[in-house]
Formats: sequence, structure tokens, C-alpha cells
Amino acid sequence: MVSEKWVCGTSRIAGCRFSIYPLSGDFVSIIEDALKKTNTSKVWMLTDDVSTCVRGRMSQVFDVVHAIFAHAAASGEHVVFSGTFSIGCPGDSSGDVYMSEDDVRLNEPPPGVDTAAQFALYPLNAPGYMGMIADAVEAAKSLGTFSGSVHYASRLDGSANDVFRTLEQVFAKAADEVSHLVMTATLSCNSPSPKPVRKSAGEAMAR
Amino acid sequence: MVSEKWVCGTSRIAGCRFSIYPLSGDFVSIIEDALKKTNTSKVWMLTDDVSTCVRGRMSQVFDVVHAIFAHAAASGEHVVFSGTFSIGCPGDSSGDVYMSEDDVRLNEPPPGVDTAAQFALYPLNAPGYMGMIADAVEAAKSLGTFSGSVHYASRLDGSANDVFRTLEQVFAKAADEVSHLVMTATLSCNSPSPKPVRKSAGEAMAR
Repeated sequence: MVSEKWVCGTSRIAGCRFSIYPLSGDFVSIIEDALKKTNTSKVWMLTDDVSTCVRGRMSQVFDVVHAIFAHAAASGEHVVFSGTFSIGCPGDSSGDVYMSEDDVRLNEPPPGVDTAAQFALYPLNAPGYMGMIADAVEAAKSLGTFSGSVHYASRLDGSANDVFRTLEQVFAKAADEVSHLVMTATLSCNSPSPKPVRKSAGEAMAR
Repeated sequence: MVSEKWVCGTSRIAGCRFSIYPLSGDFVSIIEDALKKTNTSKVWMLTDDVSTCVRGRMSQVFDVVHAIFAHAAASGEHVVFSGTFSIGCPGDSSGDVYMSEDDVRLNEPPPGVDTAAQFALYPLNAPGYMGMIADAVEAAKSLGTFSGSVHYASRLDGSANDVFRTLEQVFAKAADEVSHLVMTATLSCNSPSPKPVRKSAGEAMAR
């Protein structure tokens, strides 16, 4: 039970280092606008010239990155999210004060834009890590977002809401099983490139 | 000795799944132009609507992604590279034919643009992984590109040439020590955001 790990300040702080890339000359205003529309008061957040880091309760981390992506996507431009989610990095404690927040989410991201994603799960120091990755694929299949494997990643297709729900569920499940967990994810919407023809549910399930 | 692993088709194939993001309305032509200027004949390469995957000898993989980034950067636009390098993924063999290529590099990337990078090393199923990450930081310090640690990543600053040389060296060294290795890297150039004030060598070394 993750909740037991949070008792008495024993932190199980999660985080995400990510960037939003609007492929547009207006990228600065699209990013600024998305940040302005997102309530980040329950997370620690710091932006530098390469990326942004958000830290806090797992639920709040996913709430914030989902909202920022969804608001940027609402610009209609081709927008990409690229990030690394992490929990249990040894010695990782700054920002612990945000763990005293509750799990009530502050954001209501706009209706989910059609999104393509590629994600990979990396449980560290875990001999059974390949089994955990297989479990994540099964979870994505049961949520209806899994649409195939590519080298080094699994693909998800669906609304931004469905994709982020899948990412959060597979991350949360794996984080219950291993101390240090990393997950990379790249999400793309409004791309001018055609999506690959999606396999039928049966074909996708067989992969 | 990695070379021994390559004898007789026993593959030690490396790969990189990456995307180039020119933050510009001209992103399509910048990407197409960079691809056109890069010789990719010694690697297996496949692009979908989310990312591109390159596979082959480690030297050729780094040669190709470096060249694509450098050519895109030469556009003068704010360009970002985001990618995951991988070697030793179990069951990972398609594209093995490219392992019969030699290590002679085919590209001469344009003079390196000033680049900021954040990278992270993930040795899988390796109890000593934190020590390997510390070794990578030491290697980056000795190459003069390390400029500090941030949550979940280490920062590099330098020319694109210096940054890619650092990434390749730390990846190659770690790949000699562990079977399955992953490294994420985000590189940014021509950003309108100011770089953080870089610490002196002494301060950076002390981190």
C-alpha cells in the first residue's frame, strides 16, 4: 500500500521532468498560456532553459502535466510532450512539503485531443523488470489505449485523457512493486504526419 | 571487450528512438532538410508519426543522430533533440544486418552550435547502477561538459560536438559494464530562454 509509505513524512515523492514543444513560431505564448491556465499550487515546480520539473504526490504530478499538455494542445498547433516520470530516486527528498497535500485534483483539462504516445517503463535494480513491462502492456490493453509495440517503446492511441490515465495507472502499479521507477513518455497531437493504420483490437491484443 | 561480442553475428546492436523538434512553423522543411543532408546508409531507420528509430553499431547510431541534430540546428531556429538510446534490450535483434558495417563515420556534422543538454543513464537489472551513474558524471566532468545536476538528470553544456561526444563516451563505457542499458537525452540549441549562470569549473566539480 503506497499510502502507508506516506505516513509521518516518509516520502514517496514522485516527479516528472518534461518539456512541451509546440511546433510553431508562437511556441513561447502557447507554453505561457498553458502554464497560466494550469493550477500548480499542489506541486513543487521549477523551469530552466531545457525542461520543467514538477514534484509532489503522484496524483498531483499527473494532474499538472496532463493539464499543461491539454491546454497547449487546445491551441490547435502540433504539440508534443516529452517527459520522464520518476519515483524513488535515492536521496530524493527536496520538495517533500508538497507530500502533505491531498489527492484532490485542481485541474479540469479541456476535452482530450486525439493523441499518439510512446512510453517505456524502466524499473531500476529489479531482476523481474521485463515482467513488469509486460504487465504494463497488459494494463494498457485492458484500458483500450495500447496499439502496438515499437523498438524501445509501447504505443498508445486515444484521447489525451485516456492516454494520461493509462500512463498514470501503469506507473502507479509498477511503483507499488519496485522502489525506484522511471517511465519515459512522448505524446503528440495535431501532427501533420498520418497515424499508422491502427490494428484491430484482436491484432493489437496478439502482439 | 565489446568487439568480441560482435563476432559471428552475436549482436550487440545499439539504437536510438528520438525526435527533432524545431520550434518553428517551418518544422517540416527543417526536419526534411536535416534528414536529406545526413547519410544514413549504415543504419536501420524507421520513422513514424511520433518518433524515429535508428539501429546499428553504436558509433553509427551516434553519428547519425548527431548529424541530424546539427543540420537542423544550422537552421538557426530553436531546435530540440529528445531521444532514448538503448542497447541490450532482450530479444532485440531486427536490423542485425547493419552490425556488419564498419565504424567509419559517414557524416561530418556542421560546426557545433552551443547546446544545453540534460541526460540520464538507466542501467537495467544492475544493483550497482547508482555507482555507474556517478561514473558517468565523473566522465562528463573530465570532458569539460558537465555543468551540474538537476532532479532526475545531469546537465551538459558545450558545442553539439562536445555534448554528443560526452553522451557517446558515457554510454559506451556503461554498455561495457551492463547488458541492458538505456540513456535519455534532451538537447536544446538557439533557445530564447537564458541559460542558467554556469558554475565555475571548481564549483561544478564539487557537485
